[in-house]
Amino acid sequence: CTMELRLSICVLLLLCAAKSSNGGKILVWYTEASHWINMKPVLETLMDRGHQVTVLVPSTSLYMNSSEPSRFQYETFNIDVSLDVMERFVEEFLHFNMYEMDFMNPVQIYIKFIQLMNRNTMITLKFLDGVVKSETIMKKLREGNYDLLFADPIYAGSDLTADILGIPLVFSLRFSIANNWERLCGQLPAPPSFVPGSMSKLTDKMDFSGRLWNVIFYALQDLVLEHVIRKETDRYYSEIRGTPTSACKMMGKADIWLMRTYWDFNFPRPLLPNFKFVGGIHCKPAKPLPKKIEKFVQSSGDAGIIVFSLGSMVKNLTTEKANMIASALAQLPQKVLWRYSGKIPDTLGSNTKLYDWMPQNDLLGHPKTKAFITHGGANGVFEAIYHGVPMVGIPTFADQPDNMVQMEAKGAAVVVNLNFMTTEVLRDAVNTVINDKSFINSYKENAMRLSKIHHDRPMSPRDEAVFWIEFTMRNKGAKHLRVQAHELTWYQYHSLDVLAFLLVIDLLLIFILFKSCSFCFKRCCSRKTKRKAE
Amino acid sequence: CTMELRLSICVLLLLCAAKSSNGGKILVWYTEASHWINMKPVLETLMDRGHQVTVLVPSTSLYMNSSEPSRFQYETFNIDVSLDVMERFVEEFLHFNMYEMDFMNPVQIYIKFIQLMNRNTMITLKFLDGVVKSETIMKKLREGNYDLLFADPIYAGSDLTADILGIPLVFSLRFSIANNWERLCGQLPAPPSFVPGSMSKLTDKMDFSGRLWNVIFYALQDLVLEHVIRKETDRYYSEIRGTPTSACKMMGKADIWLMRTYWDFNFPRPLLPNFKFVGGIHCKPAKPLPKKIEKFVQSSGDAGIIVFSLGSMVKNLTTEKANMIASALAQLPQKVLWRYSGKIPDTLGSNTKLYDWMPQNDLLGHPKTKAFITHGGANGVFEAIYHGVPMVGIPTFADQPDNMVQMEAKGAAVVVNLNFMTTEVLRDAVNTVINDKSFINSYKENAMRLSKIHHDRPMSPRDEAVFWIEFTMRNKGAKHLRVQAHELTWYQYHSLDVLAFLLVIDLLLIFILFKSCSFCFKRCCSRKTKRKAE
Repeated sequence: CTMELRLSICVLLLLCAAKSSNGGKILVWYTEASHWINMKPVLETLMDRGHQVTVLVPSTSLYMNSSEPSRFQYETFNIDVSLDVMERFVEEFLHFNMYEMDFMNPVQIYIKFIQLMNRNTMITLKFLDGVVKSETIMKKLREGNYDLLFADPIYAGSDLTADILGIPLVFSLRFSIANNWERLCGQLPAPPSFVPGSMSKLTDKMDFSGRLWNVIFYALQDLVLEHVIRKETDRYYSEIRGTPTSACKMMGKADIWLMRTYWDFNFPRPLLPNFKFVGGIHCKPAKPLPKKIEKFVQSSGDAGIIVFSLGSMVKNLTTEKANMIASALAQLPQKVLWRYSGKIPDTLGSNTKLYDWMPQNDLLGHPKTKAFITHGGANGVFEAIYHGVPMVGIPTFADQPDNMVQMEAKGAAVVVNLNFMTTEVLRDAVNTVINDKSFINSYKENAMRLSKIHHDRPMSPRDEAVFWIEFTMRNKGAKHLRVQAHELTWYQYHSLDVLAFLLVIDLLLIFILFKSCSFCFKRCCSRKTKRKAE
Repeated sequence: CTMELRLSICVLLLLCAAKSSNGGKILVWYTEASHWINMKPVLETLMDRGHQVTVLVPSTSLYMNSSEPSRFQYETFNIDVSLDVMERFVEEFLHFNMYEMDFMNPVQIYIKFIQLMNRNTMITLKFLDGVVKSETIMKKLREGNYDLLFADPIYAGSDLTADILGIPLVFSLRFSIANNWERLCGQLPAPPSFVPGSMSKLTDKMDFSGRLWNVIFYALQDLVLEHVIRKETDRYYSEIRGTPTSACKMMGKADIWLMRTYWDFNFPRPLLPNFKFVGGIHCKPAKPLPKKIEKFVQSSGDAGIIVFSLGSMVKNLTTEKANMIASALAQLPQKVLWRYSGKIPDTLGSNTKLYDWMPQNDLLGHPKTKAFITHGGANGVFEAIYHGVPMVGIPTFADQPDNMVQMEAKGAAVVVNLNFMTTEVLRDAVNTVINDKSFINSYKENAMRLSKIHHDRPMSPRDEAVFWIEFTMRNKGAKHLRVQAHELTWYQYHSLDVLAFLLVIDLLLIFILFKSCSFCFKRCCSRKTKRKAE
């Protein structure tokens, strides 16, 4: 009767109920890369529970592949964007983030960022053309009689499509820049004084300058959302619907927002009843390693191993960078498993092995693993938390710098900069997270504490996500969880009209009081003067 | 493999784990009446799961009785408040709420309210004397080595005591007036534009005047909290701790707030990770009725029955009121079961039976029940929601008017006023909730919809409450769920210092720009003048 046994029996019972739950029809919006990794386990569980899952897939895609063997049904739509255009965009985006940004001033970064966001919006809307402007696809979707649309809003248009089809919408979201989708469209309260904007690299403990920067960061990003992204999207949505339409309002109609984070990872912050924090959906216990890898791992002895990956998007580094990293790794007493498919560095030590791909989760869950050198992608960080492994972060783009700031603030990671690090800095960082005892708790102890928080929740994130998707299908929406704030303007929301009214009343009262006093005073004076005159 | 079967097996598994979970020692703060009703089922479950529960009970109490047979251990402390003083206070409080308030103007109500709050604070602190000023009790509590203090904050001092004992604190709270404990001490965001203050009788859909009133209501209640309640409590806390202590800050240290409401009942609103909404803890399926009552219920035929109770605190009505109510009930085709222990009204119909006590939950769950006439206490309303029974509300005090406003807004109740209602008004109200078909959904359908929301959640409220209490014991607190807002001043929280700084910078820039322009302009002009002069 241990906790694990009970949990597994509960899961079995949930599974055995699959046949009894009325199977629904779920339409899944197209997405990419790590976003897809997080949606898949939920969809698989939904299929186990008797639901039918259809995934919209663009004819050209960088990471999603409708021909790969899978249990899902695919609905392919044509798009007018070539693979070349997409690849060039991703390459430019990565290069900017990895190698240029550190050497630019804030104004240059902001301008480049706006340009990239602009191009991203254009590409996104071209994808959307393939769905909402295709009569064939829309007819198919209408005839599909879906019960729900499940979408990561990273690609625009899921809200518009759900609205056209008249079906409930559930979002799966990791983050938006400066939390502006959640804040401005989802009405999620996020006071800038203690809720750091996503990508601001701030923690929840901000001094005056931190809070100042956060306010400015929110404002700058809101300008981008309002005048770059939304402007185009609003125009597009309005054209399709034939009536002025705010894309943000449309987004706010979502029934449930499944946020892919939790309090082991994120700083605690205000939420709303229709925002469910289900971070760590893809996490699972480690499986045994392939024999060859296990042999290498075991050869590490008491020193243990280090797992090193910069994620699926960063494949190569400059020769110089790779050499610098390899020589740092060579100086470590541990054995290192490095996922790297570039040219073999000259400085590669005998303790380091390169892999095109490696079973990352199984390695992180291995008892010999001492540390994880990571780019700080949310999925990898969650796996490290799950298994309680301290990290060295070399973040490059998107939420990665923020993720690592969070892990650093919680004492479970040391962060180094890809552009400015030296062999010594990297080597010392790894030694620190493994051996440092100068804090009250070691990095390992902190990582284990986060792991405990991760595991010790009322319900697994996957079950919680599945519950709310099924809830939305069963009840044809979840509008009772949606706050009335959606119906207010920004000045009503902040009671500015009420405060202005009270101010006017106050001023009026003061004015009347002043006039009455001066009137009385004058009468008194004039009487006295008269008397004196008499 | 139905949902119910799965749930019961899960519950069994949880129970069977009781022995395996390390039994903790839980100290329970004294409370009263309906507050105690809600804490009891949680404590019983905790005992089933192997924990030891000790309840602090004052030597004199209106509703709590340490001599009543129970599984809990009691720790009695002496208080210097006589039963007579308490009874007189409750009587005066009830009389003010039931019969005086409706005939007073807002200023009179506010003054009377302040007086009552003042007296209540004094009584509360006298209770506290019996604990923190008693060396014997404090020694016993220290030696008890408790793992957690579980408290309804309605009686002050649990936070102070948890702090002295150095143990985690879990609150169980129904509401505070204008949500000011949650807002000001717990840092729960509650924008007055869509979060109506508790006891304001507003809904979440407010027009300008509603929002204006809500802002004023928040402000007035905050004044009472600050200058009436907290002033005394702060003085008391500071004296005990020997250092200036804010009672509100102390309250804010609570690890978990178990809020006794849910979205079937309350309007959706922002929350925080350490606020868990566990409304309906005491709800349970109906048991068969006692034979005599069942016989009477069955005699109602197709017309069905009406259940009528004004709660445990209101025992008697004026003869006139009772007669008026009885004659309304006499005109109904249903049989009526009325919990009433006053003088038998002359107008009592043959369809109405009076009871000193009745099995309310079992009656509400009976298939013949058509409506529930209620004072609108949260426990009764939750039972009606649980069983999907439409209501007629005759609210009198505390959260009752608000509860009924919420049920009315959700289309599950009609509200009448005890002081102004007539025989016809009451009769028509009952007929409306039973028969009205003019809305899109009938009152019954709406009540059933709320019932569905109540039942369709990932976890039963009792299990959720137990989970978080055990979590807090296991982890010696739950500080990772506590937002950083607790460390900010009010102007920092609202970023007012940042905005002021930005405003000054702006003004400075404008000033410099203006000065530069005027300087250039002057130079240009003077040159021209010179040239002209030449």
